[in-house]
Amino acid sequence: MLANDNTNMKVFSLNSNIPLAEEVVKHIGIDLGKSTITRFSDGEIQMNIEESIRGCDIYLIQSTAQPGNDYIMELLIMIDALKRASAKTINCVIPYFGYSRQDRKARSREPVTAKLIANLLEKAGASRIITVDLHSPQVQGFFNVPVDQLLAFPLLSKYFIDKALDDVVVVAPENNGVVRARKLADALDSSIAFIDRNRRPKTYIPGGMEIMGDVSGKTAIIIDDMVDTARTVTTASNALIERGAKEVYACCTHPVLSEPASTWIEESPIKELVTTNSIHLPDERRIDKITTLSIAPLLGEAIIKVQNNRSVSTLFK
Amino acid sequence: MLANDNTNMKVFSLNSNIPLAEEVVKHIGIDLGKSTITRFSDGEIQMNIEESIRGCDIYLIQSTAQPGNDYIMELLIMIDALKRASAKTINCVIPYFGYSRQDRKARSREPVTAKLIANLLEKAGASRIITVDLHSPQVQGFFNVPVDQLLAFPLLSKYFIDKALDDVVVVAPENNGVVRARKLADALDSSIAFIDRNRRPKTYIPGGMEIMGDVSGKTAIIIDDMVDTARTVTTASNALIERGAKEVYACCTHPVLSEPASTWIEESPIKELVTTNSIHLPDERRIDKITTLSIAPLLGEAIIKVQNNRSVSTLFK
Amino acid sequence: MLANDNTNMKVFSLNSNIPLAEEVVKHIGIDLGKSTITRFSDGEIQMNIEESIRGCDIYLIQSTAQPGNDYIMELLIMIDALKRASAKTINCVIPYFGYSRQDRKARSREPVTAKLIANLLEKAGASRIITVDLHSPQVQGFFNVPVDQLLAFPLLSKYFIDKALDDVVVVAPENNGVVRARKLADALDSSIAFIDRNRRPKTYIPGGMEIMGDVSGKTAIIIDDMVDTARTVTTASNALIERGAKEVYACCTHPVLSEPASTWIEESPIKELVTTNSIHLPDERRIDKITTLSIAPLLGEAIIKVQNNRSVSTLFK
Amino acid sequence: MLANDNTNMKVFSLNSNIPLAEEVVKHIGIDLGKSTITRFSDGEIQMNIEESIRGCDIYLIQSTAQPGNDYIMELLIMIDALKRASAKTINCVIPYFGYSRQDRKARSREPVTAKLIANLLEKAGASRIITVDLHSPQVQGFFNVPVDQLLAFPLLSKYFIDKALDDVVVVAPENNGVVRARKLADALDSSIAFIDRNRRPKTYIPGGMEIMGDVSGKTAIIIDDMVDTARTVTTASNALIERGAKEVYACCTHPVLSEPASTWIEESPIKELVTTNSIHLPDERRIDKITTLSIAPLLGEAIIKVQNNRSVSTLFK
Amino acid sequence: MLANDNTNMKVFSLNSNIPLAEEVVKHIGIDLGKSTITRFSDGEIQMNIEESIRGCDIYLIQSTAQPGNDYIMELLIMIDALKRASAKTINCVIPYFGYSRQDRKARSREPVTAKLIANLLEKAGASRIITVDLHSPQVQGFFNVPVDQLLAFPLLSKYFIDKALDDVVVVAPENNGVVRARKLADALDSSIAFIDRNRRPKTYIPGGMEIMGDVSGKTAIIIDDMVDTARTVTTASNALIERGAKEVYACCTHPVLSEPASTWIEESPIKELVTTNSIHLPDERRIDKITTLSIAPLLGEAIIKVQNNRSVSTLFK
Amino acid sequence: MLANDNTNMKVFSLNSNIPLAEEVVKHIGIDLGKSTITRFSDGEIQMNIEESIRGCDIYLIQSTAQPGNDYIMELLIMIDALKRASAKTINCVIPYFGYSRQDRKARSREPVTAKLIANLLEKAGASRIITVDLHSPQVQGFFNVPVDQLLAFPLLSKYFIDKALDDVVVVAPENNGVVRARKLADALDSSIAFIDRNRRPKTYIPGGMEIMGDVSGKTAIIIDDMVDTARTVTTASNALIERGAKEVYACCTHPVLSEPASTWIEESPIKELVTTNSIHLPDERRIDKITTLSIAPLLGEAIIKVQNNRSVSTLFK
Repeated sequence: MLANDNTNMKVFSLNSNIPLAEEVVKHIGIDLGKSTITRFSDGEIQMNIEESIRGCDIYLIQSTAQPGNDYIMELLIMIDALKRASAKTINCVIPYFGYSRQDRKARSREPVTAKLIANLLEKAGASRIITVDLHSPQVQGFFNVPVDQLLAFPLLSKYFIDKALDDVVVVAPENNGVVRARKLADALDSSIAFIDRNRRPKTYIPGGMEIMGDVSGKTAIIIDDMVDTARTVTTASNALIERGAKEVYACCTHPVLSEPASTWIEESPIKELVTTNSIHLPDERRIDKITTLSIAPLLGEAIIKVQNNRSVSTLFK
Repeated sequence: MLANDNTNMKVFSLNSNIPLAEEVVKHIGIDLGKSTITRFSDGEIQMNIEESIRGCDIYLIQSTAQPGNDYIMELLIMIDALKRASAKTINCVIPYFGYSRQDRKARSREPVTAKLIANLLEKAGASRIITVDLHSPQVQGFFNVPVDQLLAFPLLSKYFIDKALDDVVVVAPENNGVVRARKLADALDSSIAFIDRNRRPKTYIPGGMEIMGDVSGKTAIIIDDMVDTARTVTTASNALIERGAKEVYACCTHPVLSEPASTWIEESPIKELVTTNSIHLPDERRIDKITTLSIAPLLGEAIIKVQNNRSVSTLFK
Repeated sequence: MLANDNTNMKVFSLNSNIPLAEEVVKHIGIDLGKSTITRFSDGEIQMNIEESIRGCDIYLIQSTAQPGNDYIMELLIMIDALKRASAKTINCVIPYFGYSRQDRKARSREPVTAKLIANLLEKAGASRIITVDLHSPQVQGFFNVPVDQLLAFPLLSKYFIDKALDDVVVVAPENNGVVRARKLADALDSSIAFIDRNRRPKTYIPGGMEIMGDVSGKTAIIIDDMVDTARTVTTASNALIERGAKEVYACCTHPVLSEPASTWIEESPIKELVTTNSIHLPDERRIDKITTLSIAPLLGEAIIKVQNNRSVSTLFK
Repeated sequence: MLANDNTNMKVFSLNSNIPLAEEVVKHIGIDLGKSTITRFSDGEIQMNIEESIRGCDIYLIQSTAQPGNDYIMELLIMIDALKRASAKTINCVIPYFGYSRQDRKARSREPVTAKLIANLLEKAGASRIITVDLHSPQVQGFFNVPVDQLLAFPLLSKYFIDKALDDVVVVAPENNGVVRARKLADALDSSIAFIDRNRRPKTYIPGGMEIMGDVSGKTAIIIDDMVDTARTVTTASNALIERGAKEVYACCTHPVLSEPASTWIEESPIKELVTTNSIHLPDERRIDKITTLSIAPLLGEAIIKVQNNRSVSTLFK
Repeated sequence: MLANDNTNMKVFSLNSNIPLAEEVVKHIGIDLGKSTITRFSDGEIQMNIEESIRGCDIYLIQSTAQPGNDYIMELLIMIDALKRASAKTINCVIPYFGYSRQDRKARSREPVTAKLIANLLEKAGASRIITVDLHSPQVQGFFNVPVDQLLAFPLLSKYFIDKALDDVVVVAPENNGVVRARKLADALDSSIAFIDRNRRPKTYIPGGMEIMGDVSGKTAIIIDDMVDTARTVTTASNALIERGAKEVYACCTHPVLSEPASTWIEESPIKELVTTNSIHLPDERRIDKITTLSIAPLLGEAIIKVQNNRSVSTLFK
Repeated sequence: MLANDNTNMKVFSLNSNIPLAEEVVKHIGIDLGKSTITRFSDGEIQMNIEESIRGCDIYLIQSTAQPGNDYIMELLIMIDALKRASAKTINCVIPYFGYSRQDRKARSREPVTAKLIANLLEKAGASRIITVDLHSPQVQGFFNVPVDQLLAFPLLSKYFIDKALDDVVVVAPENNGVVRARKLADALDSSIAFIDRNRRPKTYIPGGMEIMGDVSGKTAIIIDDMVDTARTVTTASNALIERGAKEVYACCTHPVLSEPASTWIEESPIKELVTTNSIHLPDERRIDKITTLSIAPLLGEAIIKVQNNRSVSTLFK
């Protein structure tokens, strides 16, 4: 699948999501590059690249998910090592781009950490970013190097189309998710609803939350880009059932699933949470309700296309 | 109002919005700096700063509104002249930040022009950006220099609170405006609605547009950050009237008002469009329906606070 | 003409001089890359590259002539789009480099706009500049990326050599043009003269202008790098005729020709103005007296040589 | 102690060594700036600066000790927040500069992490670094911003001078520590010895280690810049006792003391380990053998001198 | 003469022109800063700044004249030392900016050394350049930091005005010096002439050199920006005498005077060479024909004005 | 030896060590690139590259040895010329990296000149540094571009292994050379000693110098990275003989050998100084005692491997 003159490429994985990296290289038909990333006794990261990468195009797979600071430092240190070892290009494949919710100053004197991370990656020596479903698309503009943003949306929508659910309503769990819900609704030819959260003294329902749109008797699919503690999505699921929804599905690209997400999902009326493996889910946090779709073929194809200088936009269809 | 040791500051205006600049310096209690910005016979910008600005903190007022390319070049050239003339700091006051809608790659191989402009301003020598209501707050992160984003929201919401309208519903004219509508609704203690635009084959109403939320018999206030050709807002106003709204107001921070905005607004059911003077509206594009609130006091206070090293966050309340 | 392993190149044109770009690609034997550059209703530039350019060497043709600000912004935005779309190199072919007369601080607190433009192009992502006859050769040094400055001089001098005029004197229309005049005189084996403009109270001839060198009975060829309003060149032509010149030709590389250049040239004793198509001359500004030599073969050869990593210095002979 | 016109300064502490920071500000006679640094549920750092710092000179105290990655990210994010909140200068006070042992490529394809950290700090916006006893003095050259390296050596040597031990030999625990040992020996007017570690097949004593210099009957003081797991220093102490040393002291600037350092020191013949509070030692890792000298007065004086534009070199005596 | 709040400034001199530096500080009324610049045995520059300069505005005087490479390295190393020692600003006073003739690529594959030097100075940490009569004014644009270019022209023209010579013609010794000659001619209310050097086979006078303009019976003043080996100016003086000039003066700002300049000037018909002390002339190269005007007052005034944030443009009159 | 697709490379030499450069290209099997580096009459460097290098990988050989400032400027100017002439990569082969001893601030307000040089090389346009035995390995971290540090150690140790000397002790001539001595001792399976230099009032032997380790009756080999005036090494040799050493050899990588090194070595008990040709030794400074090992094969192999994208780490064994 790789053009003949493009065999000078290697894929390395750091520690955040090795199973995904292994799936990706299997898709491409090559082996993972050899490196060791260990810790000194005081926790400092020790890194060694164990094969020559001089003049190679490197693809470095790392989600900067929990523990994010360690994984970001691993990524930066590896980029430094690759740069000093004369890599030709350093393409960072970051399926989940951590700190991406901190993409603006919401209050005075806050950092814009997502921009900081972008600056750090460029300063360290990143040549390109390949990522999946940024929290806000503007984060692309935080970079001066090319960013190839892949979309997990086709995976998620195909899953629900194949499921052929009846009388669906797609639900945005918060005011700012309406555009995302509209997009899935277009794919499923359904209507939308959303949870309107106000902060006024006189609230209509407990919790300052009201559902706009008709959900009664319908199959609700809540969509968000990521699920962290799952409070938003489980609260929404309860409200939907109260308002007469027949059943509730949820889906998201990035399963952050911080504690106690698994418990809350388990206890909620959510029937199934459909997500991807952009973040590695350790066994102890897996529950039966969670369905994981693999983005490895998507990442593998993207890497092949980038390496062969072919357009990746065909992957968005 | 300026601290004693901060008198070494000057405010200059470029050509986009001289009336606003004059209001701002009047508020501060100083005169505009002297400069001439003219054109050579071939249209190239000729600039001369006519007083010494060596060691001064400069505040340079320019909205990069239509003709945006000329006003951006004026701004960049003036920054270059100020830098070479040994200004201490160059604070760009950009009430309307043009090209801000191009803040992401919506399709493959598109530019991220808002980021480009940010890079150009920093490269030319800008020390700080003071702006009002960015199209998306993430644009702050496009800059590495400090950005003070001021909010026109208190001006707009106070105007409607003072009007004491009955039974109000705040309306987002598109799916992505729900958060902004929610914020005004919170201030007015009202409900919200929005125009849901789908792209499906089977559409509920002509134009693939449906109103979510109850508007019947209510006074609708459409809110957006800017009004350009006014197609969105006038289409929305028609739909609201069709669905039984009693009357329709509209408001926005930035009156871009490209042709044929004035005509369309005049012919629409919109009773009043409340906006600010972030963009200068020439007389020929003014109509009686448009109410302009001045942001000059806001900008003047912000400049004074920045120059005195006081927090500007108090202006957001 | 392109080496076999260099087919991965594409030539794009922006809006300033499409006829020249078409001639250039015809010379090379390829088609222009597909892109659309249009305007939003408020005048902001909208750009889309309509074919994949990932990994390609791009040659982007744009003269930053009138309206210069728009054409500079087109160029910067296109560079941004190409960079984010993963172009391998971005070679800006700028036949006429606007603002190049503003290459120094002539007075206090003036900008050095030519340097600013150079900085902006590099910041946006330009890899190389290919240009023709810079106003001053020092402008090359404004760039840190390689600059290939091509010379239209051989075209112009060959035209006059072929014309085989008798008893020629080459005339510099201003004190600072003597070197350029000397060079053409060497090629034509002729003498030189120049218009000495003084600013003293006691001037020798009306207008503070005196001709140095013998022009009586001779065929004068005025040479300049560009002709803008044509005031300098037409004034000079009148003075030459007054001083006994038999007939007057003029030549320049860049036909800026701002209003009322055409009228002034038409009404002047200039018999023929020989120039190039570095700037596109719309039909309404063309007059019979103007002869346009095409630099398309020069640019095409330069692009082929750059792409094949061959020396372009052979083009200077 | 602060000059009258230098009151516009604030000292902030991050989480690594709050007791030291509190001592420092007490020495200066001011309060710590107010900020909150907490964690989101997924471990991402949440930061808020709770007082205006616009136009202030900021001193930010953070040792990048264990957990180093978290503390480095805290530091970078805080710098970003301070920069965007318009701090005038951001002076990073880093008593212990982590990753400083990774200051060169010891083997092929290793990172130079100390340089990477320096680059990241500068990119984030640091104006100056104030640090104590870098692992190698060359790390100063990794920065382009000014570095004020303070020395704990006078503290340590004064402690031993005051102790008035008899017949001292200063011991370097490894071949590369001879210069440091020589310096303390000069201060104490003593001889030196060092542990020569060879890697040859025929070794003189078990462990490939030989003591050079006379230690028999003497009081040995082992000196190193940092003690991590304490393996080096405790092994050395055993060897010294075997070779007849009367008693063994150890000293170092930075008590990294990773597990099982405390146990090993406790069980070793080391009578006392003299160190500083450059790294915060939690109670569970403290043992009676460890004496901690405070560098707070040193840091406090340095901050005062920097803020008053006085030379800090007087602190080195 | 210095404003009260601007006493925090110091002037240092490097080795190229200590007499000028001493004159400058005497004019300002302060002492030179203390530093030692010596050489290691292998010729490497050893530098020590012997007084605290923390937070000071530094003015560093160095002409990069012969031996230029050593003096450039001295300058760069001193800037590095000042930056690391926490100077507030580093203002390089470079009366003669060496390598300034290499300001463009005259042939293929030549360096643009003047631009390189500008880049190196900025990279090292220069905040500002104060210089005198750049070889071409475009060199200002090689810098991104402010450049204050002072003019020695008023000194030279005043000298000749005071001399009250009769029937003067100002002569440019080469085609590219006509503008400079015109300027002096305007000041002296005289005519101009210039030496036209052609490169054609059929030359009018031996040496391919012809004088344009009337010089017979006149007092000729040759003007150039610098005199290096003096070949150009002495050849011109011979030609002028041959063509009937009564007597010949010469003047220039920068007395480079490489061997055998003194001999050639001595042996030429030049009556007097008027120049400045921008470059230090050692006694062995001084001859009676050379008159040196001091630029120390000009530099001193410029430093005072820059330090007091006053306009330096008044110095140009 | 070069891969087929890597023939697009050229090796150029500047003036510091042309014999070495000629040996290197002979080893590779190619000719030196054609260039002229001369001086203008005032000593400024004039450079011309006399063959097209467009798109080539350039290897530029220059030791920045005495006269270091001239050779550094040659290097920087050539890099500028290569960059502007469109070299693809500029690989600086710097066998001896001058100013490398100034790699830290030993005292207040000193420069870190080695870092400055690194910054200047990168700013000029260097893509990579290939060097031999840096004074301290941390200097690698002064660069952001890749540094391939080659080791002359195997050459030196092999020479002494082949010599098969009896009863060897390897001696560090100063406290900071113990690690280097240990490494050679490991290779020769010998013991070590070093010269302990104290600065105390009560010194054991004249000169404040004491030998640690047993040297009596042994063959001593003094090792250092460079020998400058040879004071250190000759003083050490005298002390060793006084303490009973049988004979004394010395070795170093870099023969700086400033005056009066040759005389001092000649007059000392040193039997042989083994060094390399990293620095060119003119005939007048050569003496019989000096043995020069050639690093040309090492550099040649390194260039081939870099150009073929093979690992250079195999050269370290």
